[in-house]
Amino acid sequence: MAISVETFFLNPEAQGTLQAQIQQMIAHGILSGRFRRGEKLPSSRKLAVHLGVSRITVTLAYTELLANDYLSARGRSGYYVSDNAPEPPPERPPVPRNDGVDWSRAIGQRFTGGVTPEKPQDWARFRYPFIYGQADPTLFDHANWRLCALQALGQKDFTALTTDYYDQDDPQLIEFIARHTLPRRGIIARPSEILVTLGAQNALWLTAQVLLTQRRVAAIENPCYHALRDILTQSRCRLAPVDVDADGLPPDAIPSDADVIFTTPSHQCPTTATMPLNRRRALLKRAAELDALIVEDDYEFEMSFLSPPSPALKSLDADGRVIYVGSFSKSLFPGLRLGYLVGSEPFIREARALRASVLRHPPGHIQRTAAYFLSLGHYDAQIRRMGRVLAERRQVIEQAVQRHGLEVAGRGAFGGSSIWMRAAEGTDMSERARALLAQSVLIEPGQNFFSGEMPPAHFYRLAYSSIPSERIDEGIAQIAQALA
Amino acid sequence: MAISVETFFLNPEAQGTLQAQIQQMIAHGILSGRFRRGEKLPSSRKLAVHLGVSRITVTLAYTELLANDYLSARGRSGYYVSDNAPEPPPERPPVPRNDGVDWSRAIGQRFTGGVTPEKPQDWARFRYPFIYGQADPTLFDHANWRLCALQALGQKDFTALTTDYYDQDDPQLIEFIARHTLPRRGIIARPSEILVTLGAQNALWLTAQVLLTQRRVAAIENPCYHALRDILTQSRCRLAPVDVDADGLPPDAIPSDADVIFTTPSHQCPTTATMPLNRRRALLKRAAELDALIVEDDYEFEMSFLSPPSPALKSLDADGRVIYVGSFSKSLFPGLRLGYLVGSEPFIREARALRASVLRHPPGHIQRTAAYFLSLGHYDAQIRRMGRVLAERRQVIEQAVQRHGLEVAGRGAFGGSSIWMRAAEGTDMSERARALLAQSVLIEPGQNFFSGEMPPAHFYRLAYSSIPSERIDEGIAQIAQALA
Repeated sequence: MAISVETFFLNPEAQGTLQAQIQQMIAHGILSGRFRRGEKLPSSRKLAVHLGVSRITVTLAYTELLANDYLSARGRSGYYVSDNAPEPPPERPPVPRNDGVDWSRAIGQRFTGGVTPEKPQDWARFRYPFIYGQADPTLFDHANWRLCALQALGQKDFTALTTDYYDQDDPQLIEFIARHTLPRRGIIARPSEILVTLGAQNALWLTAQVLLTQRRVAAIENPCYHALRDILTQSRCRLAPVDVDADGLPPDAIPSDADVIFTTPSHQCPTTATMPLNRRRALLKRAAELDALIVEDDYEFEMSFLSPPSPALKSLDADGRVIYVGSFSKSLFPGLRLGYLVGSEPFIREARALRASVLRHPPGHIQRTAAYFLSLGHYDAQIRRMGRVLAERRQVIEQAVQRHGLEVAGRGAFGGSSIWMRAAEGTDMSERARALLAQSVLIEPGQNFFSGEMPPAHFYRLAYSSIPSERIDEGIAQIAQALA
Repeated sequence: MAISVETFFLNPEAQGTLQAQIQQMIAHGILSGRFRRGEKLPSSRKLAVHLGVSRITVTLAYTELLANDYLSARGRSGYYVSDNAPEPPPERPPVPRNDGVDWSRAIGQRFTGGVTPEKPQDWARFRYPFIYGQADPTLFDHANWRLCALQALGQKDFTALTTDYYDQDDPQLIEFIARHTLPRRGIIARPSEILVTLGAQNALWLTAQVLLTQRRVAAIENPCYHALRDILTQSRCRLAPVDVDADGLPPDAIPSDADVIFTTPSHQCPTTATMPLNRRRALLKRAAELDALIVEDDYEFEMSFLSPPSPALKSLDADGRVIYVGSFSKSLFPGLRLGYLVGSEPFIREARALRASVLRHPPGHIQRTAAYFLSLGHYDAQIRRMGRVLAERRQVIEQAVQRHGLEVAGRGAFGGSSIWMRAAEGTDMSERARALLAQSVLIEPGQNFFSGEMPPAHFYRLAYSSIPSERIDEGIAQIAQALA
C-alpha cells in the first residue's frame, strides 16, 4: 500500500532544518510502526508540493534515508520502506502522555465497573464452545445473506443505503416486521408503534431511559440478563430483584411499588423457564393492579423447535401496558445489531427522539438487507434449519448431561439454545470455567446473572448454539470430570 | 409471497366456533391490509396442525371465504387472497387503543421537543436541493463500495460480519484510522485511544454523557449544530453559548466556569469559518488556564479542496485536553453511521463502557466494509473526486450569489460543502424556505442553529454537496426572487 501524502505534516514549532524534519518524520513513522516494510512513499514532487518546500529538500531527505537503509529505491518507480528498515519493537512502547488532565475529576459520570463479564473474543478457537449467542457458521445461510446484501447495494436501493433518515427507519423493514414478524407472536401493531434498534441491548437501554428515573422502581427477575442489570444500575432507578421459579417470574412476588417490570416469558434468561399462559394472565393482572408497565424481552422466541411458542405477553395486553423487545441477533446473527421495540405511540415517540439524539438510526444498508432476507423467505427457512439442528443437539446434550451425572437446573419447554445447570453447592463455577479453558472447553459461569450481596456461584449455562453435535458428549465429559 | 402459518393464532378468549374464528382471522387480515391480493395461504393441513384443530374445520373456513370472494383457489396449488378481495381503506383507520396507561405519568424522561428541525426525506425530488449532508449519487463511488461490501461478506470475513464483539471494534478499521486517517490530521493515537461510533452524532452524545452533569458548564459556539444543543440540553448541564466571529470561536469570550468547550475549528458549523492557527493555540491556552476540556468536531475536514486543511486542534494538544470527533458521513455517506472518537485512555474507557451498554458496537459488516474501502485507496480517490466537483460548484455558487445580489455571511477558507447566508434583517427565512418548496427549491433556514430567546431569523445555509452545477444559478435566481 502507498503511504498517502496527506499523512505528512510539518510541525510549525519544530526545530532543525526542513530536510532534517522530513527525515525525522519518516524515520519516526517507521520506528513507531505506522509505515511498514514495502510501503511506497509519495514521490518527492508530491511531498514537496504538499509540505510547501522545495523538491530538492525532499530528495535530499530521501537520499539520506536511502543511505541509512530506512528506504530503498526501485528504479523509476520510486521510494519504498526498505526491507532492512528497523522493525518497531514488538510491543509498541506506550508513548508517554503527559496528560495535563486530572481524569478522575474530569469524568462526570462513570460507566465502567458493571457486572457484564468479559466475553472471549476467540471462542471459535475452542474445541468445546458451549458459548451462548454467537453465530454458528454451519447454520447461518451465508450465501443468501450475501445475495440480499448485494441486492440492497444496488442502484435501486441507493437511497436506502446512503440516506440520512434522521429519526426514521427503513419503511420496508418496518412493514415486514408489522405484517409478518409480529403476527407470529400474536401482535398486531402499526408502523408508528415500532422502532428499529441496534439490537435488543439498545431496545432495553432506550426503554430504561424513557421509563425510569432515580425515583422509580424496576422489578427484575433474579437471576436475570447481566447487561440489563448494568443498564438499570446506570439509570439510577431502584432495583427490586424477584426470585424466579420453574415457571419464570411469580407475579405475586412483585413488590407493590414497582413501576416497571422486566421479564423474559418465552425463555427466562438464564434459567430458560417458559411462563405458562395462566401466569402470563396473572402477570398482566398484577401489572394493571400496580399500574406498572411490563417490558417483555422476547429474545429467542424463534428457537421454539420443540413446540410452537406461546403467544407473546404483548398479544394478551389489552391496555397498552406491555412494551415488547424483539431481536434478530439469535435468529440471524448478533453482529447485525438489529432489534426492535413495540409499544404505544407516546412511548415509541420518546424512544425515537432519544434514539435520534444518541445515534440517529441503525445503518440503512443493514436494515434493507434484513428486509430482503426476511421477505424472500430465507429467514423462515433459516429458523426451520436451526430448529432441526438445535433439536438434535438438545437431545444429545440432554443425554450427555444425564450420562455424565450433571444436574440440570432449568430447560426451556419449547426449545431455546441453552440449558441452565447446577453444580454441587459451594462449587465456584467461575474458577472451574477458567480451569476448563485449558482443556478447550468454554462454559459460562452463572454468578453474574444474580442480584444480591452473595450471588450463588454454583450455577452455569451450557449453550448448544455454536457447538457441533458430535463434540457435545466429549465436552460434557470434560465438564463432569472438572466438577467431580 | 406466501403467508406464513406462524402468523395465525387462535385467541384463547375468543367467542364463536373454531371455523368462524378462522374465517374472521383471515378476513380481518385482508381488511386490515396485512394479507394482500395474490398472497398464498397455508395449506389446510398445515394450518390445522399449527392451530391444533381438525383439518375439516380449516377447509370449511376456506370454502366459506372462497364463496365470499375473499379467497380464490388455483387448482391443486392451494388458496390465495382473491383478486376481488375487498381492499383495505387507503388510509388505515387508527385502531382504537383503549390504553389503560396514563403515559403522561408513565414516561419518566422526555426526549421529544428538541430544536433539531425535521428534515425533508424526499429531498431528491427537488430540482434545486441546496440540502446539506446527504450523499450525491453522482459523486459516490458506489461500484467500489459494492465490491468492498462483497469482499467483507466473504467466508474469510464471517467472524467480522456475524460476531458479537461486545464492547470491542473491528481491529482492521481501528488500525486503518490510527495509521492512515488520523495522521492526515497530524494526530498520532494508539488503538486504545480510539472508539468507533454510530456517526459523529453518537460520538458527541457519548462524550456529553461521560463529561457532563447537571453541575457542569458546556461552552458552545453560537450559532452551532442544533443536534449538539439537543444532546447537551438532554444531559441537563448548563449551556454557555459564545458568539463566534469570522475566525470561529473567540477564546477570550469563553466563560471562566466552562468545564467542556465544544468547537468546530475546521469549518465552524454553520458559519463555515476556519479557525486560524494562532487562535487554535490561544484556545488551547485558554482551556489549560480554565482546566477545561475541548471537544473538537472535525466533521468535514476532507472537504478542504481549496487548500490543505490546518492540522487538527488535537494535533497541537500536548496534555490530552482535546477529544477529537471524526466522521465518515460527509466523505462516504451519512446512512453508513460511522464516526470515531479519539481521546485519552481514561476517557475512551468510559465512553466504550457506555457504548457497550447503549448498543454494544456498530455492526461489524459496516466496519469491515469501510476498512476495505479505506485501505484499497478508494476513499482517497473519492475525496479527490468530490474535491474537484465541489470546487467547481463552489465557484458557480459564489458567482451566482454575487450575480443575483445575495449576501454571503460566511464561507470556509479551505472549502467545505456549504456557504452561510444573510438576508435582510427582519426576513423570516423559515417562512421563505417553506414558500420556496413550491418552486422546488430546498434551503435550510438558520434560526435553529442559534441559542437564546430571540434567535435571528434572517440567516440561511446553502449547501452545494447534492446539487449539480448546472442547476445552481437557476436555483439561486429563485431564492433571490423570493427574497426581493
